[in-house]
Amino acid sequence: MIERVAVIGLGLLGGSVGLAVRADAPEIVTTGYDADEATRARATERGLVGTVHNDIAEAVRDADLVLLCVPVGAMKSVAAKIDPHLRGDAIVSDVGSSKQSVLRDLTEALPGRTIIPAHPVAGTEQSGADAGFAELFHGRWCIVTPPEGAAPEALAALRIFWQRLGATVEIMDAEHHDLVLAVTSHIPHLIAYTIVGTASDMEEVTRSEVIKYSAGGFRDFTRIAASDPTMWRDVFLHNRDAVLEMLGRFTEDLTAMQRAIRSGDGETLHNMFSRTRAIRRQVIEQGQDDAAPDFGRKH
Amino acid sequence: MIERVAVIGLGLLGGSVGLAVRADAPEIVTTGYDADEATRARATERGLVGTVHNDIAEAVRDADLVLLCVPVGAMKSVAAKIDPHLRGDAIVSDVGSSKQSVLRDLTEALPGRTIIPAHPVAGTEQSGADAGFAELFHGRWCIVTPPEGAAPEALAALRIFWQRLGATVEIMDAEHHDLVLAVTSHIPHLIAYTIVGTASDMEEVTRSEVIKYSAGGFRDFTRIAASDPTMWRDVFLHNRDAVLEMLGRFTEDLTAMQRAIRSGDGETLHNMFSRTRAIRRQVIEQGQDDAAPDFGRKH
Repeated sequence: MIERVAVIGLGLLGGSVGLAVRADAPEIVTTGYDADEATRARATERGLVGTVHNDIAEAVRDADLVLLCVPVGAMKSVAAKIDPHLRGDAIVSDVGSSKQSVLRDLTEALPGRTIIPAHPVAGTEQSGADAGFAELFHGRWCIVTPPEGAAPEALAALRIFWQRLGATVEIMDAEHHDLVLAVTSHIPHLIAYTIVGTASDMEEVTRSEVIKYSAGGFRDFTRIAASDPTMWRDVFLHNRDAVLEMLGRFTEDLTAMQRAIRSGDGETLHNMFSRTRAIRRQVIEQGQDDAAPDFGRKH
Repeated sequence: MIERVAVIGLGLLGGSVGLAVRADAPEIVTTGYDADEATRARATERGLVGTVHNDIAEAVRDADLVLLCVPVGAMKSVAAKIDPHLRGDAIVSDVGSSKQSVLRDLTEALPGRTIIPAHPVAGTEQSGADAGFAELFHGRWCIVTPPEGAAPEALAALRIFWQRLGATVEIMDAEHHDLVLAVTSHIPHLIAYTIVGTASDMEEVTRSEVIKYSAGGFRDFTRIAASDPTMWRDVFLHNRDAVLEMLGRFTEDLTAMQRAIRSGDGETLHNMFSRTRAIRRQVIEQGQDDAAPDFGRKH
Protein backbone atom coordinates (compact mmCIF):
# COMPACT_ATOMS: atom_id res chain seq x y z
CA MET A 1 0.00 0.00 0.00
CA ILE A 2 1.09 3.55 -0.74
CA GLU A 3 2.15 5.42 2.42
CA ARG A 4 4.22 8.36 1.14
CA VAL A 5 3.52 10.19 -2.10
CA ALA A 6 5.78 12.77 -3.72
CA VAL A 7 4.01 15.11 -6.14
CA ILE A 8 6.37 16.72 -8.65
CA GLY A 9 4.71 19.71 -10.32
CA LEU A 10 2.10 21.55 -8.25
CA GLY A 11 -0.25 22.90 -10.91
CA LEU A 12 -3.89 21.92 -11.57
CA LEU A 13 -3.24 18.17 -11.56
CA GLY A 14 -0.52 17.95 -8.93
CA GLY A 15 -2.35 20.32 -6.60
CA SER A 16 -5.58 18.37 -7.00
CA VAL A 17 -3.81 15.10 -6.20
CA GLY A 18 -2.41 16.62 -3.00
CA LEU A 19 -5.76 18.04 -1.92
CA ALA A 20 -7.57 14.82 -2.84
CA VAL A 21 -5.16 12.75 -0.73
CA ARG A 22 -5.74 15.07 2.22
CA ALA A 23 -9.51 14.76 1.78
CA ASP A 24 -9.88 11.10 0.84
CA ALA A 25 -6.74 9.31 2.07
CA PRO A 26 -5.51 11.51 4.93
CA GLU A 27 -3.10 8.98 6.45
CA ILE A 28 -0.91 9.13 3.33
CA VAL A 29 2.02 11.52 3.82
CA THR A 30 2.51 13.93 0.93
CA THR A 31 5.55 15.91 -0.15
CA GLY A 32 5.85 18.12 -3.21
CA TYR A 33 8.11 20.15 -5.43
CA ASP A 34 7.69 22.59 -8.28
CA ALA A 35 10.46 24.14 -10.37
CA ASP A 36 8.80 27.54 -10.04
CA GLU A 37 9.47 29.36 -6.77
CA ALA A 38 6.20 31.33 -6.76
CA THR A 39 4.28 28.09 -7.32
CA ARG A 40 6.05 26.49 -4.36
CA ALA A 41 5.16 29.49 -2.17
CA ARG A 42 1.51 29.38 -3.19
CA ALA A 43 1.42 25.59 -2.78
CA THR A 44 2.66 26.01 0.78
CA GLU A 45 0.02 28.67 1.51
CA ARG A 46 -2.77 26.49 0.14
CA GLY A 47 -1.40 23.34 1.77
CA LEU A 48 -1.50 21.45 -1.51
CA VAL A 49 0.81 18.83 0.03
CA GLY A 50 2.04 18.21 3.56
CA THR A 51 5.54 19.56 2.89
CA VAL A 52 6.67 21.61 -0.10
CA HIS A 53 10.41 21.17 -0.59
CA ASN A 54 12.77 23.61 -2.30
CA ASP A 55 14.93 20.68 -3.38
CA ILE A 56 13.47 17.99 -5.63
CA ALA A 57 15.79 15.38 -4.06
CA GLU A 58 14.28 16.01 -0.63
CA ALA A 59 10.77 15.80 -2.02
CA VAL A 60 11.20 12.28 -3.48
CA ARG A 61 13.65 10.77 -0.97
CA ASP A 62 11.18 8.84 1.22
CA ALA A 63 8.35 8.37 -1.26
CA ASP A 64 6.99 4.97 -2.24
CA LEU A 65 5.02 6.64 -5.05
CA VAL A 66 6.40 9.53 -7.10
CA LEU A 67 3.80 11.21 -9.31
CA LEU A 68 5.18 13.36 -12.11
CA CYS A 69 2.59 16.10 -12.75
CA VAL A 70 4.60 18.10 -15.29
CA PRO A 71 4.07 18.71 -19.04
CA VAL A 72 4.90 15.54 -21.00
CA GLY A 73 7.84 17.32 -22.65
CA ALA A 74 9.48 17.74 -19.23
CA MET A 75 9.10 14.12 -18.08
CA LYS A 76 12.51 12.92 -19.18
CA SER A 77 14.61 15.69 -17.63
CA VAL A 78 12.63 15.60 -14.37
CA ALA A 79 12.98 11.82 -14.21
CA ALA A 80 16.76 12.11 -14.71
CA LYS A 81 16.91 14.59 -11.83
CA ILE A 82 15.09 12.37 -9.34
CA ASP A 83 16.71 9.05 -10.31
CA PRO A 84 19.67 9.23 -7.89
CA HIS A 85 17.41 10.08 -4.96
CA LEU A 86 14.62 7.51 -5.28
CA ARG A 87 14.00 4.67 -2.88
CA GLY A 88 14.80 1.30 -4.43
CA ASP A 89 11.15 0.18 -4.19
CA ALA A 90 9.59 3.48 -5.35
CA ILE A 91 6.90 3.38 -8.01
CA VAL A 92 7.24 6.19 -10.55
CA SER A 93 4.00 7.25 -12.23
CA ASP A 94 2.63 10.37 -13.88
CA VAL A 95 -0.58 12.09 -15.02
CA GLY A 96 0.42 13.00 -18.59
CA SER A 97 -1.97 13.02 -21.55
CA SER A 98 0.22 10.98 -23.93
CA LYS A 99 1.43 7.61 -22.73
CA GLN A 100 3.74 6.04 -25.33
CA SER A 101 6.15 8.97 -25.13
CA VAL A 102 6.05 9.03 -21.31
CA LEU A 103 6.72 5.30 -21.08
CA ARG A 104 9.65 5.65 -23.47
CA ASP A 105 11.09 8.73 -21.72
CA LEU A 106 10.77 7.35 -18.20
CA THR A 107 12.20 3.95 -19.21
CA GLU A 108 15.25 5.67 -20.67
CA ALA A 109 15.76 8.06 -17.77
CA LEU A 110 15.03 5.57 -14.98
CA PRO A 111 16.63 2.23 -15.94
CA GLY A 112 15.60 -0.62 -13.66
CA ARG A 113 12.93 1.42 -11.86
CA THR A 114 9.27 0.45 -11.38
CA ILE A 115 7.50 2.65 -13.91
CA ILE A 116 3.71 2.62 -14.35
CA PRO A 117 2.40 5.57 -16.40
CA ALA A 118 -1.16 6.72 -15.82
CA HIS A 119 -3.59 9.37 -17.03
CA PRO A 120 -6.54 10.59 -14.98
CA VAL A 121 -9.00 11.89 -17.58
CA ALA A 122 -9.97 15.01 -15.67
CA GLY A 123 -9.13 18.67 -15.72
CA THR A 124 -10.39 22.18 -16.22
CA GLU A 125 -9.23 25.07 -18.38
CA GLN A 126 -7.40 26.59 -15.41
CA SER A 127 -3.79 25.94 -14.46
CA GLY A 128 -1.26 26.77 -11.76
CA ALA A 129 -1.09 26.42 -8.00
CA ASP A 130 -4.49 28.02 -7.49
CA ALA A 131 -6.35 25.75 -9.88
CA GLY A 132 -6.40 22.41 -8.04
CA PHE A 133 -9.30 21.10 -5.96
CA ALA A 134 -9.92 17.89 -4.03
CA GLU A 135 -12.89 16.61 -6.03
CA LEU A 136 -11.33 16.78 -9.50
CA PHE A 137 -11.13 13.00 -9.86
CA HIS A 138 -14.52 12.08 -8.43
CA GLY A 139 -16.48 10.01 -10.94
CA ARG A 140 -13.70 10.29 -13.55
CA TRP A 141 -11.64 7.57 -15.21
CA CYS A 142 -7.96 7.01 -14.62
CA ILE A 143 -6.29 5.08 -17.43
CA VAL A 144 -3.23 3.13 -16.30
CA THR A 145 -0.84 1.90 -19.00
CA PRO A 146 1.61 -0.53 -17.39
CA PRO A 147 4.52 -1.73 -19.52
CA GLU A 148 4.76 -5.46 -20.19
CA GLY A 149 5.91 -7.34 -17.11
CA ALA A 150 5.02 -4.56 -14.66
CA ALA A 151 5.02 -5.78 -11.05
CA PRO A 152 1.43 -6.80 -10.17
CA GLU A 153 1.70 -5.52 -6.59
CA ALA A 154 2.87 -2.08 -7.78
CA LEU A 155 0.00 -1.96 -10.28
CA ALA A 156 -2.47 -2.98 -7.56
CA ALA A 157 -1.15 -0.29 -5.21
CA LEU A 158 -1.47 2.41 -7.89
CA ARG A 159 -4.97 1.25 -8.72
CA ILE A 160 -6.07 1.47 -5.10
CA PHE A 161 -4.46 4.91 -4.80
CA TRP A 162 -6.53 6.33 -7.68
CA GLN A 163 -9.67 4.60 -6.52
CA ARG A 164 -9.33 6.25 -3.13
CA LEU A 165 -9.22 9.66 -4.86
CA GLY A 166 -12.59 8.86 -6.44
CA ALA A 167 -11.52 7.62 -9.87
CA THR A 168 -12.32 4.36 -11.64
CA VAL A 169 -9.20 2.68 -12.98
CA GLU A 170 -8.99 1.19 -16.45
CA ILE A 171 -5.96 -0.74 -17.73
CA MET A 172 -5.01 -0.09 -21.36
CA ASP A 173 -1.92 -0.38 -23.50
CA ALA A 174 -0.17 2.90 -24.16
CA GLU A 175 -0.66 2.83 -27.92
CA HIS A 176 -4.42 2.39 -27.65
CA HIS A 177 -4.58 5.10 -24.98
CA ASP A 178 -2.91 7.54 -27.33
CA LEU A 179 -5.41 6.81 -30.10
CA VAL A 180 -8.46 7.09 -27.81
CA LEU A 181 -7.28 10.33 -26.24
CA ALA A 182 -6.39 11.80 -29.63
CA VAL A 183 -10.12 11.56 -30.38
CA THR A 184 -11.68 12.44 -27.04
CA SER A 185 -9.28 15.14 -25.96
CA HIS A 186 -6.40 16.16 -28.23
CA ILE A 187 -8.32 16.83 -31.46
CA PRO A 188 -11.10 18.71 -29.59
CA HIS A 189 -8.43 20.95 -28.04
CA LEU A 190 -6.66 21.50 -31.36
CA ILE A 191 -9.92 22.42 -33.06
CA ALA A 192 -10.94 24.76 -30.25
CA TYR A 193 -7.58 26.52 -30.25
CA THR A 194 -7.78 26.87 -34.03
CA ILE A 195 -11.29 28.27 -34.32
CA VAL A 196 -10.64 30.77 -31.52
CA GLY A 197 -7.51 31.83 -33.40
CA THR A 198 -9.38 32.06 -36.72
CA ALA A 199 -12.08 34.20 -35.14
CA SER A 200 -9.62 36.61 -33.58
CA ASP A 201 -7.73 37.15 -36.84
CA MET A 202 -10.58 38.33 -39.00
CA GLU A 203 -10.86 41.73 -40.54
CA GLU A 204 -14.53 41.91 -41.49
CA VAL A 205 -15.69 40.76 -38.07
CA THR A 206 -14.13 42.55 -35.11
CA ARG A 207 -12.83 40.80 -32.04
CA SER A 208 -15.34 42.73 -29.98
CA GLU A 209 -18.18 41.25 -32.07
CA VAL A 210 -16.80 37.75 -31.68
CA ILE A 211 -16.84 38.17 -27.91
CA LYS A 212 -20.24 39.87 -27.72
CA TYR A 213 -22.01 37.19 -29.70
CA SER A 214 -20.09 34.23 -28.32
CA ALA A 215 -23.17 32.76 -26.63
CA GLY A 216 -24.16 31.24 -29.98
CA GLY A 217 -21.67 28.39 -29.45
CA PHE A 218 -18.25 29.97 -29.71
CA ARG A 219 -17.88 30.55 -25.95
CA ASP A 220 -17.77 26.79 -25.29
CA PHE A 221 -14.69 26.61 -27.52
CA THR A 222 -13.04 29.53 -25.75
CA ARG A 223 -13.17 27.58 -22.51
CA ILE A 224 -11.15 24.69 -23.94
CA ALA A 225 -8.84 27.10 -25.76
CA ALA A 226 -7.96 28.71 -22.41
CA SER A 227 -6.07 25.59 -21.32
CA ASP A 228 -2.37 25.65 -20.45
CA PRO A 229 -0.29 26.37 -23.61
CA THR A 230 2.86 24.53 -22.53
CA MET A 231 1.00 21.40 -21.53
CA TRP A 232 -0.84 21.32 -24.84
CA ARG A 233 2.16 22.11 -27.02
CA ASP A 234 3.84 19.08 -25.46
CA VAL A 235 0.80 16.84 -25.96
CA PHE A 236 0.74 17.55 -29.70
CA LEU A 237 4.48 17.08 -30.10
CA HIS A 238 4.41 13.82 -28.09
CA ASN A 239 1.29 12.23 -29.51
CA ARG A 240 1.98 13.36 -33.06
CA ASP A 241 1.17 10.21 -35.01
CA ALA A 242 -2.21 9.53 -33.41
CA VAL A 243 -3.17 13.21 -33.59
CA LEU A 244 -2.27 13.47 -37.29
CA GLU A 245 -4.16 10.25 -38.06
CA MET A 246 -7.32 11.42 -36.29
CA LEU A 247 -7.01 14.93 -37.69
CA GLY A 248 -6.96 13.40 -41.18
CA ARG A 249 -10.25 11.64 -40.55
CA PHE A 250 -11.83 14.75 -39.08
CA THR A 251 -10.89 16.90 -42.07
CA GLU A 252 -12.24 14.25 -44.46
CA ASP A 253 -15.56 14.34 -42.61
CA LEU A 254 -15.55 18.14 -42.52
CA THR A 255 -14.96 18.22 -46.27
CA ALA A 256 -18.00 15.98 -46.75
CA MET A 257 -20.09 18.42 -44.69
CA GLN A 258 -18.72 21.32 -46.72
CA ARG A 259 -19.73 19.57 -49.92
CA ALA A 260 -23.24 18.93 -48.55
CA ILE A 261 -23.62 22.61 -47.68
CA ARG A 262 -22.30 23.77 -51.05
CA SER A 263 -24.62 21.47 -52.98
CA GLY A 264 -27.64 22.16 -50.76
CA ASP A 265 -27.87 18.53 -49.65
CA GLY A 266 -30.13 19.00 -46.63
CA GLU A 267 -30.73 15.28 -46.18
CA THR A 268 -27.05 14.50 -45.54
CA LEU A 269 -26.84 17.37 -43.06
CA HIS A 270 -30.00 16.34 -41.24
CA ASN A 271 -28.89 12.71 -41.02
CA MET A 272 -25.54 13.69 -39.54
CA PHE A 273 -27.08 16.15 -37.08
CA SER A 274 -29.58 13.53 -35.92
CA ARG A 275 -26.97 10.83 -35.24
CA THR A 276 -24.91 12.90 -32.84
CA ARG A 277 -27.66 13.40 -30.25
CA ALA A 278 -27.48 9.78 -29.14
CA ILE A 279 -23.85 10.22 -28.15
CA ARG A 280 -24.71 13.20 -25.97
CA ARG A 281 -27.40 11.17 -24.23
CA GLN A 282 -24.91 8.42 -23.42
CA VAL A 283 -22.30 10.87 -22.14
CA ILE A 284 -24.89 12.13 -19.67
CA GLU A 285 -26.23 8.67 -18.76
CA GLN A 286 -22.71 7.55 -17.92
CA GLY A 287 -22.16 10.48 -15.58
CA GLN A 288 -19.51 12.17 -17.71
CA ASP A 289 -21.47 15.41 -18.03
CA ASP A 290 -24.27 17.44 -16.55
CA ALA A 291 -27.78 16.93 -17.93
CA ALA A 292 -28.77 20.52 -17.17
CA PRO A 293 -29.18 22.47 -20.42
CA ASP A 294 -26.32 24.72 -21.46
CA PHE A 295 -24.02 23.09 -18.88
CA GLY A 296 -26.32 24.41 -16.18
CA ARG A 297 -25.18 27.96 -16.75
CA LYS A 298 -27.22 30.54 -14.90
CA HIS A 299 -29.32 32.72 -17.16
CA MET B 1 -45.84 49.92 -27.81
CA ILE B 2 -46.46 46.23 -28.25
CA GLU B 3 -49.66 45.05 -26.59
CA ARG B 4 -50.44 41.70 -28.23
CA VAL B 5 -47.78 39.24 -29.36
CA ALA B 6 -48.37 36.11 -31.43
CA VAL B 7 -45.65 33.48 -31.11
CA ILE B 8 -45.54 31.08 -34.07
CA GLY B 9 -43.54 27.97 -33.21
CA LEU B 10 -43.52 26.94 -29.54
CA GLY B 11 -40.11 25.27 -29.17
CA LEU B 12 -37.10 26.44 -27.14
CA LEU B 13 -37.15 30.00 -28.50
CA GLY B 14 -40.88 30.54 -28.89
CA GLY B 15 -41.61 28.99 -25.51
CA SER B 16 -38.95 31.12 -23.83
CA VAL B 17 -40.39 34.29 -25.40
CA GLY B 18 -43.84 33.42 -24.05
CA LEU B 19 -42.54 32.65 -20.56
CA ALA B 20 -40.32 35.74 -20.57
CA VAL B 21 -43.26 37.98 -21.49
CA ARG B 22 -45.29 36.50 -18.64
CA ALA B 23 -42.41 37.10 -16.23
CA ASP B 24 -41.08 40.44 -17.40
CA ALA B 25 -43.90 42.14 -19.34
CA PRO B 26 -47.04 40.56 -17.93
CA GLU B 27 -49.50 43.12 -19.33
CA ILE B 28 -48.69 42.02 -22.90
CA VAL B 29 -51.27 39.51 -24.18
CA THR B 30 -49.72 36.44 -25.81
CA THR B 31 -51.16 33.96 -28.26
CA GLY B 32 -49.37 31.08 -29.91
CA TYR B 33 -49.46 28.35 -32.51
CA ASP B 34 -47.33 25.35 -33.43
CA ALA B 35 -47.81 23.08 -36.44
CA ASP B 36 -47.31 20.04 -34.21
CA GLU B 37 -50.38 18.98 -32.21
CA ALA B 38 -48.39 17.43 -29.33
CA THR B 39 -46.35 20.62 -29.01
CA ARG B 40 -49.55 22.68 -28.82
CA ALA B 41 -50.88 20.39 -26.08
CA ARG B 42 -47.69 20.63 -24.06
CA ALA B 43 -47.51 24.40 -24.63
CA THR B 44 -51.01 24.70 -23.19
CA GLU B 45 -50.06 22.60 -20.15
CA ARG B 46 -46.95 24.67 -19.47
CA GLY B 47 -48.73 27.96 -20.18
CA LEU B 48 -46.06 29.03 -22.65
CA VAL B 49 -48.45 31.66 -23.98
CA GLY B 50 -51.80 32.99 -22.79
CA THR B 51 -53.78 31.15 -25.48
CA VAL B 52 -52.56 28.34 -27.72
CA HIS B 53 -54.67 28.26 -30.90
CA ASN B 54 -55.24 25.26 -33.14
CA ASP B 55 -55.56 27.61 -36.11
CA ILE B 56 -52.66 29.83 -37.09
CA ALA B 57 -55.07 32.47 -38.41
CA GLU B 58 -56.67 32.83 -34.97
CA ALA B 59 -53.27 33.09 -33.33
CA VAL B 60 -52.14 36.09 -35.38
CA ARG B 61 -55.44 37.90 -35.94
CA ASP B 62 -55.19 40.52 -33.18
CA ALA B 63 -51.43 40.69 -32.79
CA ASP B 64 -49.43 43.88 -33.22
CA LEU B 65 -46.22 41.81 -33.15
CA VAL B 66 -45.95 38.40 -34.80
CA LEU B 67 -42.75 36.52 -33.89
CA LEU B 68 -41.86 33.64 -36.17
CA CYS B 69 -39.96 31.12 -34.04
CA VAL B 70 -39.64 28.37 -36.67
CA PRO B 71 -36.59 26.95 -38.51
CA VAL B 72 -35.36 29.46 -41.10
CA GLY B 73 -36.30 27.05 -43.89
CA ALA B 74 -39.96 27.28 -42.86
CA MET B 75 -40.16 31.09 -42.67
CA LYS B 76 -41.50 31.64 -46.17
CA SER B 77 -44.33 29.12 -46.07
CA VAL B 78 -45.41 30.17 -42.57
CA ALA B 79 -45.36 33.83 -43.62
CA ALA B 80 -47.54 33.04 -46.63
CA LYS B 81 -50.04 31.29 -44.34
CA ILE B 82 -50.41 34.22 -41.95
CA ASP B 83 -50.42 37.02 -44.54
CA PRO B 84 -54.20 37.11 -45.14
CA HIS B 85 -54.93 37.21 -41.41
CA LEU B 86 -52.58 39.91 -40.18
CA ARG B 87 -53.64 43.28 -38.85
CA GLY B 88 -52.66 46.10 -41.18
CA ASP B 89 -50.27 47.61 -38.64
CA ALA B 90 -48.73 44.33 -37.46
CA ILE B 91 -44.96 44.07 -37.19
CA VAL B 92 -43.62 40.73 -38.38
CA SER B 93 -40.35 39.63 -36.83
CA ASP B 94 -38.53 36.37 -36.12
CA VAL B 95 -35.74 34.77 -34.08
CA GLY B 96 -33.88 32.96 -36.87
CA SER B 97 -30.10 32.48 -36.98
CA SER B 98 -29.60 33.67 -40.58
CA LYS B 99 -30.92 37.07 -41.50
CA GLN B 100 -30.38 37.74 -45.23
CA SER B 101 -32.47 34.72 -46.18
CA VAL B 102 -35.20 35.58 -43.68
CA LEU B 103 -35.43 39.15 -44.89
CA ARG B 104 -35.68 37.95 -48.49
CA ASP B 105 -38.25 35.23 -47.72
CA LEU B 106 -40.47 37.45 -45.57
CA THR B 107 -40.32 40.32 -48.05
CA GLU B 108 -41.48 38.01 -50.83
CA ALA B 109 -44.21 36.33 -48.80
CA LEU B 110 -45.51 39.47 -47.07
CA PRO B 111 -45.53 42.28 -49.65
CA GLY B 112 -46.23 45.69 -48.10
CA ARG B 113 -45.97 44.44 -44.52
CA THR B 114 -43.75 45.86 -41.77
CA ILE B 115 -40.93 43.33 -41.54
CA ILE B 116 -38.08 43.65 -39.04
CA PRO B 117 -36.01 40.46 -38.68
CA ALA B 118 -34.17 39.84 -35.42
CA HIS B 119 -31.95 37.25 -33.79
CA PRO B 120 -31.62 36.87 -30.04
CA VAL B 121 -28.20 35.23 -29.57
CA ALA B 122 -29.29 32.78 -26.90
CA GLY B 123 -30.21 29.15 -26.69
CA THR B 124 -29.36 25.77 -25.26
CA GLU B 125 -28.85 22.34 -26.79
CA GLN B 126 -32.41 21.37 -25.92
CA SER B 127 -35.45 21.85 -28.10
CA GLY B 128 -39.23 21.42 -28.07
CA ALA B 129 -42.08 22.65 -25.90
CA ASP B 130 -40.36 21.55 -22.67
CA ALA B 131 -37.11 23.38 -23.35
CA GLY B 132 -38.07 27.05 -22.94
CA PHE B 133 -37.52 29.11 -19.79
CA ALA B 134 -38.19 32.73 -18.89
CA GLU B 135 -34.58 33.82 -18.24
CA LEU B 136 -33.11 32.67 -21.56
CA PHE B 137 -32.58 36.22 -22.84
CA HIS B 138 -31.25 37.81 -19.64
CA GLY B 139 -27.88 39.41 -20.28
CA ARG B 140 -27.84 38.23 -23.91
CA TRP B 141 -27.70 40.26 -27.13
CA CYS B 142 -30.56 40.55 -29.59
CA ILE B 143 -29.38 41.58 -33.05
CA VAL B 144 -32.06 43.41 -35.05
CA THR B 145 -31.55 43.71 -38.80
CA PRO B 146 -34.10 46.19 -40.16
CA PRO B 147 -34.36 46.56 -43.93
CA GLU B 148 -33.63 49.97 -45.42
CA GLY B 149 -36.47 52.37 -44.74
CA ALA B 150 -37.96 50.38 -41.88
CA ALA B 151 -40.48 52.41 -39.89
CA PRO B 152 -38.63 53.97 -36.92
CA GLU B 153 -41.57 53.55 -34.55
CA ALA B 154 -41.84 49.84 -35.36
CA LEU B 155 -38.10 49.42 -34.80
CA ALA B 156 -38.35 51.29 -31.50
CA ALA B 157 -41.26 49.12 -30.36
CA LEU B 158 -39.36 45.93 -31.19
CA ARG B 159 -36.27 47.20 -29.40
CA ILE B 160 -38.23 47.95 -26.24
CA PHE B 161 -39.90 44.54 -26.43
CA TRP B 162 -36.55 42.69 -26.40
CA GLN B 163 -35.11 44.98 -23.75
CA ARG B 164 -38.01 44.13 -21.49
CA LEU B 165 -37.17 40.44 -21.85
CA GLY B 166 -33.66 41.17 -20.55
CA ALA B 167 -31.73 41.46 -23.81
CA THR B 168 -29.54 44.28 -25.11
CA VAL B 169 -30.46 45.26 -28.66
CA GLU B 170 -27.89 45.86 -31.37
CA ILE B 171 -28.76 47.08 -34.85
CA MET B 172 -26.80 45.51 -37.71
CA ASP B 173 -27.26 44.96 -41.42
CA ALA B 174 -28.31 41.45 -42.36
CA GLU B 175 -25.20 40.69 -44.39
CA HIS B 176 -22.84 41.57 -41.57
CA HIS B 177 -24.98 39.60 -39.11
CA ASP B 178 -24.63 36.51 -41.25
CA LEU B 179 -20.84 36.81 -41.35
CA VAL B 180 -20.53 37.42 -37.59
CA LEU B 181 -22.81 34.53 -36.70
CA ALA B 182 -21.07 32.21 -39.14
CA VAL B 183 -17.99 32.65 -36.95
CA THR B 184 -19.49 32.75 -33.48
CA SER B 185 -22.18 30.13 -33.92
CA HIS B 186 -22.54 28.32 -37.24
CA ILE B 187 -18.95 27.10 -37.72
CA PRO B 188 -18.68 26.03 -34.05
CA HIS B 189 -21.83 23.95 -34.51
CA LEU B 190 -20.64 22.45 -37.78
CA ILE B 191 -17.30 21.50 -36.25
CA ALA B 192 -18.92 20.02 -33.16
CA TYR B 193 -21.37 17.95 -35.22
CA THR B 194 -18.50 16.75 -37.40
CA ILE B 195 -16.07 15.70 -34.67
CA VAL B 196 -18.82 13.87 -32.78
CA GLY B 197 -19.65 12.08 -36.02
CA THR B 198 -15.99 11.27 -36.71
CA ALA B 199 -15.57 9.85 -33.21
CA SER B 200 -18.61 7.64 -33.46
CA ASP B 201 -17.54 6.16 -36.79
CA MET B 202 -14.17 4.79 -35.81
CA GLU B 203 -13.20 1.17 -35.78
CA GLU B 204 -10.06 1.16 -33.64
CA VAL B 205 -11.69 3.21 -30.89
CA THR B 206 -15.09 2.03 -29.73
CA ARG B 207 -18.04 4.31 -29.14
CA SER B 208 -18.06 3.19 -25.52
CA GLU B 209 -14.48 4.43 -25.12
CA VAL B 210 -15.32 7.75 -26.71
CA ILE B 211 -18.11 8.24 -24.18
CA LYS B 212 -16.15 7.01 -21.16
CA TYR B 213 -13.22 9.32 -21.74
CA SER B 214 -15.22 12.30 -22.98
CA ALA B 215 -14.25 14.45 -19.99
CA GLY B 216 -10.96 15.21 -21.76
CA GLY B 217 -12.71 17.82 -23.92
CA PHE B 218 -15.00 15.88 -26.23
CA ARG B 219 -18.06 16.17 -23.96
CA ASP B 220 -18.22 19.94 -24.52
CA PHE B 221 -18.60 19.25 -28.24
CA THR B 222 -21.35 16.69 -27.63
CA ARG B 223 -23.42 19.36 -25.94
CA ILE B 224 -23.41 21.58 -29.01
CA ALA B 225 -23.88 18.59 -31.30
CA ALA B 226 -27.11 17.74 -29.44
CA SER B 227 -28.85 20.81 -30.88
CA ASP B 228 -31.96 20.59 -33.03
CA PRO B 229 -31.11 18.92 -36.40
CA THR B 230 -33.83 20.63 -38.46
CA MET B 231 -32.99 24.08 -37.20
CA TRP B 232 -29.31 23.57 -37.96
CA ARG B 233 -29.81 21.98 -41.37
CA ASP B 234 -31.76 25.10 -42.31
CA VAL B 235 -29.11 27.45 -40.93
CA PHE B 236 -26.38 25.89 -43.09
CA LEU B 237 -28.54 25.86 -46.20
CA HIS B 238 -29.62 29.48 -45.66
CA ASN B 239 -26.33 31.02 -44.63
CA ARG B 240 -24.31 29.01 -47.13
CA ASP B 241 -21.98 31.68 -48.51
CA ALA B 242 -20.83 33.07 -45.18
CA VAL B 243 -20.44 29.57 -43.71
CA LEU B 244 -18.35 28.35 -46.65
CA GLU B 245 -16.20 31.47 -46.52
CA MET B 246 -15.49 31.10 -42.81
CA LEU B 247 -15.04 27.35 -43.09
CA GLY B 248 -12.35 27.98 -45.70
CA ARG B 249 -10.43 30.18 -43.30
CA PHE B 250 -10.77 27.71 -40.47
CA THR B 251 -9.43 24.82 -42.56
CA GLU B 252 -6.49 26.95 -43.70
CA ASP B 253 -5.64 27.66 -40.08
CA LEU B 254 -6.12 24.01 -39.13
CA THR B 255 -3.76 22.99 -41.92
CA ALA B 256 -1.15 25.37 -40.52
CA MET B 257 -1.51 23.72 -37.11
CA GLN B 258 -1.24 20.29 -38.71
CA ARG B 259 1.98 21.35 -40.43
CA ALA B 260 3.38 22.65 -37.12
CA ILE B 261 2.61 19.34 -35.42
CA ARG B 262 4.10 17.29 -38.26
CA SER B 263 7.31 19.31 -38.32
CA GLY B 264 7.61 19.48 -34.53
CA ASP B 265 7.33 23.29 -34.51
CA GLY B 266 6.55 23.79 -30.82
CA GLU B 267 7.00 27.55 -30.97
CA THR B 268 4.16 28.05 -33.45
CA LEU B 269 1.90 25.85 -31.35
CA HIS B 270 2.78 27.61 -28.11
CA ASN B 271 2.25 31.05 -29.64
CA MET B 272 -1.17 30.08 -30.93
CA PHE B 273 -2.21 28.44 -27.66
CA SER B 274 -1.11 31.52 -25.70
CA ARG B 275 -3.08 34.00 -27.82
CA THR B 276 -6.43 32.34 -27.31
CA ARG B 277 -6.53 32.76 -23.53
CA ALA B 278 -7.08 36.49 -23.80
CA ILE B 279 -10.30 35.92 -25.74
CA ARG B 280 -11.65 33.64 -23.03
CA ARG B 281 -10.92 36.29 -20.41
CA GLN B 282 -12.88 38.89 -22.39
CA VAL B 283 -15.83 36.54 -22.92
CA ILE B 284 -16.06 36.18 -19.15
CA GLU B 285 -15.46 39.87 -18.40
CA GLN B 286 -18.30 40.80 -20.72
CA GLY B 287 -20.69 38.46 -18.95
CA GLN B 288 -21.09 36.04 -21.85
CA ASP B 289 -19.89 33.03 -19.86
CA ASP B 290 -19.33 31.72 -16.36
CA ALA B 291 -15.92 32.26 -14.78
CA ALA B 292 -16.18 29.07 -12.74
CA PRO B 293 -13.73 26.48 -14.05
CA ASP B 294 -15.10 23.74 -16.29
CA PHE B 295 -18.37 25.70 -16.72
CA GLY B 296 -18.95 25.31 -12.99
CA ARG B 297 -19.67 21.61 -13.36
CA LYS B 298 -19.93 19.81 -10.06
CA HIS B 299 -17.05 17.43 -9.42
